[in-house]
Amino acid sequence: MESQDSEEVKQEEVEYDDRNTIRIMIASDIHLGYLETDRERGNDSFVSFEEILEQALDQEVDMVLLGGDLFHINKPSPTTLKKCLETLRKYCIGDRSVFIDVISDPKLVMCNDHVNYMDPNLNISLPVFTINGNHDDPSGPELVAALDIVSNSGLVNYFGKCTNLNEITLNPLIIQKNETKVAIFGLGYVKDERLCNMIKHNKVKYMKPTDDKDIIYILVLHQNRPERGTVKNIAEDSIPSFFHFILWGHEHECRIKPEYNTKQRFHVCQPGSPVATSLCAGEAVQKKCGILMCNKQNYKLVPRSLETVRPFVFENMTIEPDDIEEVIEEEIANTVDRMIEDAKKQLTGNPRQPKLPLIRLRVENCKPDTLSINPIVFGQKYENKVANSNEILLIKNRRYRVDADKSMKGQMDHGEDQDYIDTCVEDLLQSYYDQAGPEQQLHSFLPSELNESVKRFINQEDRSVFGDIIDYKLDAIMKHFETAKIKEEEIDSELTNFQTTIAENQGEEFKSFLVAENRTQTTNRTLGATMIDIDSDNEMETSTVETPVRPARGRGSRGGRGSRGPRGSRARGKK
Amino acid sequence: MESQDSEEVKQEEVEYDDRNTIRIMIASDIHLGYLETDRERGNDSFVSFEEILEQALDQEVDMVLLGGDLFHINKPSPTTLKKCLETLRKYCIGDRSVFIDVISDPKLVMCNDHVNYMDPNLNISLPVFTINGNHDDPSGPELVAALDIVSNSGLVNYFGKCTNLNEITLNPLIIQKNETKVAIFGLGYVKDERLCNMIKHNKVKYMKPTDDKDIIYILVLHQNRPERGTVKNIAEDSIPSFFHFILWGHEHECRIKPEYNTKQRFHVCQPGSPVATSLCAGEAVQKKCGILMCNKQNYKLVPRSLETVRPFVFENMTIEPDDIEEVIEEEIANTVDRMIEDAKKQLTGNPRQPKLPLIRLRVENCKPDTLSINPIVFGQKYENKVANSNEILLIKNRRYRVDADKSMKGQMDHGEDQDYIDTCVEDLLQSYYDQAGPEQQLHSFLPSELNESVKRFINQEDRSVFGDIIDYKLDAIMKHFETAKIKEEEIDSELTNFQTTIAENQGEEFKSFLVAENRTQTTNRTLGATMIDIDSDNEMETSTVETPVRPARGRGSRGGRGSRGPRGSRARGKK
Repeated sequence: MESQDSEEVKQEEVEYDDRNTIRIMIASDIHLGYLETDRERGNDSFVSFEEILEQALDQEVDMVLLGGDLFHINKPSPTTLKKCLETLRKYCIGDRSVFIDVISDPKLVMCNDHVNYMDPNLNISLPVFTINGNHDDPSGPELVAALDIVSNSGLVNYFGKCTNLNEITLNPLIIQKNETKVAIFGLGYVKDERLCNMIKHNKVKYMKPTDDKDIIYILVLHQNRPERGTVKNIAEDSIPSFFHFILWGHEHECRIKPEYNTKQRFHVCQPGSPVATSLCAGEAVQKKCGILMCNKQNYKLVPRSLETVRPFVFENMTIEPDDIEEVIEEEIANTVDRMIEDAKKQLTGNPRQPKLPLIRLRVENCKPDTLSINPIVFGQKYENKVANSNEILLIKNRRYRVDADKSMKGQMDHGEDQDYIDTCVEDLLQSYYDQAGPEQQLHSFLPSELNESVKRFINQEDRSVFGDIIDYKLDAIMKHFETAKIKEEEIDSELTNFQTTIAENQGEEFKSFLVAENRTQTTNRTLGATMIDIDSDNEMETSTVETPVRPARGRGSRGGRGSRGPRGSRARGKK
Repeated sequence: MESQDSEEVKQEEVEYDDRNTIRIMIASDIHLGYLETDRERGNDSFVSFEEILEQALDQEVDMVLLGGDLFHINKPSPTTLKKCLETLRKYCIGDRSVFIDVISDPKLVMCNDHVNYMDPNLNISLPVFTINGNHDDPSGPELVAALDIVSNSGLVNYFGKCTNLNEITLNPLIIQKNETKVAIFGLGYVKDERLCNMIKHNKVKYMKPTDDKDIIYILVLHQNRPERGTVKNIAEDSIPSFFHFILWGHEHECRIKPEYNTKQRFHVCQPGSPVATSLCAGEAVQKKCGILMCNKQNYKLVPRSLETVRPFVFENMTIEPDDIEEVIEEEIANTVDRMIEDAKKQLTGNPRQPKLPLIRLRVENCKPDTLSINPIVFGQKYENKVANSNEILLIKNRRYRVDADKSMKGQMDHGEDQDYIDTCVEDLLQSYYDQAGPEQQLHSFLPSELNESVKRFINQEDRSVFGDIIDYKLDAIMKHFETAKIKEEEIDSELTNFQTTIAENQGEEFKSFLVAENRTQTTNRTLGATMIDIDSDNEMETSTVETPVRPARGRGSRGGRGSRGPRGSRARGKK
């Protein structure tokens, strides 16, 4: 197989003739509905989505392939769903011909058993295929994702939903256009820890067709890609080497240029998100989508710049211990003014591009004292100049960092405030119960179990979690009592024993239980033993301090307050 | 015009020939998603919906017309939306021909400008038309209803959305089949007070076509119909007499047989709800839908019994002051046992009908003391015999009633517990602030404003209400200060004055503001002066005490705890 990993398209190498070329628009993490109630930024995700579909039609692609997180939350507002359907209806329905055939059994692949453009009752002109990400992953007793709604409207093709979390068998969607065949394996988001574990135990099976070697093999997945401290990720090397091209969703930094993995001999393409859901360096890289062209045994990716993405400039600044407090604020203001000027270079002239830029100055304070500057007050001067005036400055105090390190086991090296906040809430609850007398102790629940439930309630708007925690605990206790054959008078003391037993494994069973698969029925629940860490995945999510006037609806779902700095050594922002 | 108001179909009177007969399936208040997390009852609304569509196809109707509240809440869960779309897709898409033409301009009528079966990109076999009710009414800054989602999927035709609440102009959907023409005016739910007011001031205009008299005129609306104490309703006599047939949604009692209004000379048909969302006598009337047959100048309605509705028996029992406490519980148990036997008579043999009945015994206790019987404990014996074992008994204590009356101004005569609970919460908050010292008083909000916000947050899952209340108040205060030209040192005292002014009209302005129309933009808000009473409409909603194990998701949206007895003199339950 030949391929191309340079941004320049060398047309002379292989002739990509129309008759045999399958053109696939590649994008990911569109996060429809992100900050939807923010008057300035609420429409950004829809503008980008529309541009991607528009470019898809302009470039006469055969299909669109998305890497997950089409929606920012799994329970999108009626407005977001309506706008999504309107947009899809505008671009994906009509008389334009579709030239690709599906030659594998859609029942084995698609969530609603068929591919929309094969439905004789629907006139689909642009087929869109997508897996689910972590933001729009299936939940509830029937494991329904927001994508199931859109899929049942006939406007997208949803595949790769994982309903069995002990074992995954992936069948490919095989599409053909004359002499070219492409097999697409879709793997919707699975908790990284669990997926690592399944890979380790050979529980992920790829049903590669054996009868044909002239196929280009594509995998689309939505997982953590780089190593980041204790956060689990999926190693590229754990992906089978028969693949040629990996579409990697979840990571928001645009790395559209395919990167060659010399060991596994495949290309990895990370489109990133067209909407900055965190104000970090990775999101400030220019946003692009790409067209994957497949022709017989050859493929190449043609990047396409997005013209409607809001300008975003990210910079770092360090305050040294001997800097003079009085001039710091002036220097910061000058820097921000210059950044706003720099942002204008990102204006493309596209009339739909939002003009007010996102500006983020990350100030690392090495002075022993906290800076007197107040980011909210500072931002008020920029209200009509910057889209995120309330959160321009992110001040990191060294002192604060040192304190945090004690409980964070080094995680703060990555500047991950969201984790810090999560840990604070956990620590608070834990320390309350540590200090509380015997009378104040919980009898049936562990603080960690309550923590997980609250997190899930807030982050995923999971309204049934508190009902479920009670079911779960009742079941567990009843089973324990049945097994131990407890007499009535021993109930109280045995309950205490039970709590101690559970506490030993620190509520990991409960975390497993919270994975939706196990919540389908109260009865017959089996408590998985695999450790599952809720929210290990939102590395890029951060810093959506809302305007004080009207809190953004989006914030409930990840992307909470606080912010993160650059991750590791990559992408220190662009100038 | 001739019509038929008897249940028997007298085919001999007029020949309803196929060529000229428009057959319309009439139903209302399907409340998809009602109690969706209740394992026993969660699917009831979907079963009924499916039966209605199935009967529509069996009976070869030309279209379905629904009277609002297709969804139980305006933000249905992904599961409910998915199931709704699946069902519509199953019954409404395919090659069956549609023989009716739309001869009016859909742009003037339909929420998304077109009628689905006229769309060349969709193969619609059964057109469904619906207005919105109060449960699925448009909300949010862009006034989006759950129906907009389904409408944008192409599977229903949504019309009658009211976006201007000062004046309503209704254009008809005119359909034709050979020599028969029907003009359907859709009026989606509007607060009854506001609609009354608009009618009074001639602000509701019906754009009746002037060029054709051989049309059957239909109005579909979703409002309170009977007078109930202080609750506003729409008088039949306020509806223009040019109409022939009124499809009245919102009222859950099935009165499918058209009732003739001798003054206005039209028929009113109230299909009721196929799912009992309150355990009152009205809901125990046999559930039906109907087929309205229109032929030239004639029309008649053919009722159709629904076979998949869960059996429901309602009865009243009075405990006299001299009844002996010891035998009361036994008598109650005997009555309930007999009611369960009676419920079996409602089994139709349809395999999809849920078998466990709903049983409600309303016990009026005239003894001076509260009864010792505990409804929850009592219900435990019936867990596998009754679908609502936790809420079989509704005990009304005379003493309780007398206490309540003091603050309820006689409303309790109707047994409306929901209002009682609402009032309790309001009273609680009010009495707290009445008793609180000056330091505990609110500075910027009225207790009544907080009350309204909390109610809207809970009943309509309106997550933006608290952000909005702050916007609203800030705006109002700023405007007041601007007008009054306050100096900085007078701010505190003027704020107190402002509170007093506002308190005089008891927060009515804020209630007006909460009507979604006014919440489109923070700026340019105009505070309507019309009194709007949140939740005056849920007369039939009541008594969904959930199972203790897994609280029902549906309860957040109306239909709260507590229950209501029969309303006025109608329909004292069936045996």
